[in-house]
Amino acid sequence: MTEKVINPDENTIFVGNKPPMSYVLAVVTQFNGGSDEVVIKARGRAISRAVDTAEIVRNRFVQNAKVKDIKIGTENITNEEGRNSNVSSIEISSCNNKEKSLVKNRYNDFAIMSKTNKQ
Amino acid sequence: MTEKVINPDENTIFVGNKPPMSYVLAVVTQFNGGSDEVVIKARGRAISRAVDTAEIVRNRFVQNAKVKDIKIGTENITNEEGRNSNVSSIEISSCNNKEKSLVKNRYNDFAIMSKTNKQ
Repeated sequence: MTEKVINPDENTIFVGNKPPMSYVLAVVTQFNGGSDEVVIKARGRAISRAVDTAEIVRNRFVQNAKVKDIKIGTENITNEEGRNSNVSSIEISSCNNKEKSLVKNRYNDFAIMSKTNKQ
Repeated sequence: MTEKVINPDENTIFVGNKPPMSYVLAVVTQFNGGSDEVVIKARGRAISRAVDTAEIVRNRFVQNAKVKDIKIGTENITNEEGRNSNVSSIEISSCNNKEKSLVKNRYNDFAIMSKTNKQ
């Protein structure tokens, strides 16, 4: 077995204005690809969608997924007109406890979806 | 000194659709009234406003305030038509480290505002 180089950015899902299920799919795909931990990030109004994403993943698809840590913060953003404004941000770290095998059956259906989507 | 009976509900601020500053004022008033911990709760789209509230309190008014714990969850709600739907929720526990006295000056201005508001 070759050792896998872990790139932390690969495990990060940025939540924006798409429907929550797009991000749910991205998170489940990450877990399915062998990631132990996925970080869901969002800013401003997308914060509530990030929480939705984490909750849908945990309740419907990866039942061993646990919220490991949640951080909130403030980011300074310069808009198109050159003005600075503060925007809140969230980082939800979700980890997958793989010991229970029950999960796999649950998210195999989703894995097929994600593979189809990639092509 | 008489012992104060702590009612956990009194320290909870429910964030809804008002402007964030309304909730900031409520949180600062709680801290100013002697609470060591304030819980900011919200559901659905108000979640991002709850994060804004916690961040504005910490950055502008109570600089010793620290986010102690953040919980996310899902609540089942029955709407007017009798349908069930799931909605995400957040609970941000913010605590005030009173050891540093620097804070008081900062939020005395706000305390005056809040007293005026109560009358």
